[in-house]
Amino acid sequence: MASPQQEPVYIREAALKSFCIAVLQRLGVPAGEAALVANVLVEADLRGVESHGVLRLPMYVERIAAGGANPKPVMRMVRESRTTAVLDGDNGLGHLVGVRAMELAMAKAADGDCAFVAVRNSNHYGAAAYYAEMAARRDMIGLSFTISALLLMPPWGGAEAMIGNNPMAVAFPTDREFPIVLDMACTVARGKILAAAKRGASIPADWATGPDGLPTTDPAEALKGFLLPVGGPKGYALAVTIGLLSTMLSGANFGSEIGQLHWQTQKAPNVGHLFGVVPISSFEDVAHYKQRIGKAIEDVRNVKKAPGVERIFLPGEREYLLLQERRRLGIPLSLGVFQDLQQVGKRYGIAFEPA
Amino acid sequence: MASPQQEPVYIREAALKSFCIAVLQRLGVPAGEAALVANVLVEADLRGVESHGVLRLPMYVERIAAGGANPKPVMRMVRESRTTAVLDGDNGLGHLVGVRAMELAMAKAADGDCAFVAVRNSNHYGAAAYYAEMAARRDMIGLSFTISALLLMPPWGGAEAMIGNNPMAVAFPTDREFPIVLDMACTVARGKILAAAKRGASIPADWATGPDGLPTTDPAEALKGFLLPVGGPKGYALAVTIGLLSTMLSGANFGSEIGQLHWQTQKAPNVGHLFGVVPISSFEDVAHYKQRIGKAIEDVRNVKKAPGVERIFLPGEREYLLLQERRRLGIPLSLGVFQDLQQVGKRYGIAFEPA
Repeated sequence: MASPQQEPVYIREAALKSFCIAVLQRLGVPAGEAALVANVLVEADLRGVESHGVLRLPMYVERIAAGGANPKPVMRMVRESRTTAVLDGDNGLGHLVGVRAMELAMAKAADGDCAFVAVRNSNHYGAAAYYAEMAARRDMIGLSFTISALLLMPPWGGAEAMIGNNPMAVAFPTDREFPIVLDMACTVARGKILAAAKRGASIPADWATGPDGLPTTDPAEALKGFLLPVGGPKGYALAVTIGLLSTMLSGANFGSEIGQLHWQTQKAPNVGHLFGVVPISSFEDVAHYKQRIGKAIEDVRNVKKAPGVERIFLPGEREYLLLQERRRLGIPLSLGVFQDLQQVGKRYGIAFEPA
Repeated sequence: MASPQQEPVYIREAALKSFCIAVLQRLGVPAGEAALVANVLVEADLRGVESHGVLRLPMYVERIAAGGANPKPVMRMVRESRTTAVLDGDNGLGHLVGVRAMELAMAKAADGDCAFVAVRNSNHYGAAAYYAEMAARRDMIGLSFTISALLLMPPWGGAEAMIGNNPMAVAFPTDREFPIVLDMACTVARGKILAAAKRGASIPADWATGPDGLPTTDPAEALKGFLLPVGGPKGYALAVTIGLLSTMLSGANFGSEIGQLHWQTQKAPNVGHLFGVVPISSFEDVAHYKQRIGKAIEDVRNVKKAPGVERIFLPGEREYLLLQERRRLGIPLSLGVFQDLQQVGKRYGIAFEPA
């Protein structure tokens, strides 16, 4: 039986957004921009990606309060061509900067061009999928890359963290109610190692290394060591690639430039992103594209299933189904997250109750 | 001691290219285009990616001879905008079609735009890296995606192959003699399972499934079953993404449309690719970009090493070093590959000797 402490607290989407907006406004974020950040955060919780949802609000609050993130950024176009731009986020919250940058990329693609917008002086932007999905809703393939401002893993063969787990997302419009969405980072989640340590179980040898950089199956050693990239050298190469895409076009920080910045809440981390859009209509009749991707969905869904498997999901489909469910039934927050948010609310005089 | 049969046969780059060109010409491929295909093939062998080098020549030869690939394609622009195009490869060899498509993408980016070219009616294009590196040599980030015309793995939870291992490559220009290059496919190489079976060793549980779709550590079961994607569901989502990118914009085959086509040497497989280019100069001063990526290279290289590790390599660096070495010392072909090529030579009256 789960202890009462572990029962989640349910809260409605609208109530959770209102709370986030109120907190951000107290910190000086203008109402419209606070709403936009709240949308990105709460959508992650709706989709079941709790690690990138309101769980992070206290961290963003702390950063703004400490002067390490700018509540009222004045973003600036550093360089621009008809299909490219470099945007300086003026150290604004990454969610705001990310939405603006993707909007810019989509505007540049309005006449059927491909477009890329590189970003510097941003912050943690939450779930990579959000921005890619913005493009998919406009019948474009959306690409979203960011660098993790937290050095989590060594280069392949190293024993010193120099690379983040660097997430990417790609979203495809479909003929269904949901887009197909890849959203991945390049390491196993650290939480899985923590869980194994608590259970006293060993971990697979390709999840992490000890502090010496050698693979370990002991979760306690792993927690003192480093995460390993998914797929070994493939994941290492992919993490480097996503990191370079996110930083080298805009002048955002990479590697040693990141250093301990993540932990210094009073300093701008100069996080970088890259957003790309590929409009379907320049390549294919959109209706024909949708018919074909619909057939691809059926091909994948209708394969013979492995024993015990009830249903095959397309990438992003589970998240969409969860989003529908949580819009109906409310969003379950763990008691810990709920209490952390209440704490933040108390600090700014904003009530936060189950609703 | 290695048996004499296992000693490789060394052959010079120029001699290997000449042989490939001569064979392709006998099959009706014009001289210039044969040279271009030979360049792509032999570069894979130079870089140590033997699986995508001249080892495959007999397969291409068989396909052309059987009427399943066109030695003299007349490629056709299906659709075009200033930054996009769809190219119909007229069932030409994938290497030729790929080079032409990447050249087109680079031409479209000559004024500083991003560009994407989608391809249909192509064939197996060899190593994805080759095309991405073409762009890197022109100070652009190069992107290269293709679908494997061989259904190798089930969707996550499935027990029926519907997805290829779908490779991708990304290449970055640097201030060094080598570009940084990601070139990855989405499964473990089947050869590793074969090797374990021969040794009588077990395999990690995340490499493959038995015929029922359930993970297995028994290589014999795995060889009757399916490959698993690298990183589990992440690799599944990535393989679907690369497959859709490579096919949905151009009308190339995906999923059930591929079916058993790969094995039918007399039929056009309608393979698809996607090529993208992002010119550095539209985002950053190229010299400044190169200085920064040079610093990133040093950051990665100079981390503390794990015990037993002598050197940290950037993605693509090992391949570059091997290419230098093999240009000097010759390319080692396994005796099996050498004899297969001699066989092909004999059929077309072309001598093939160590040189």
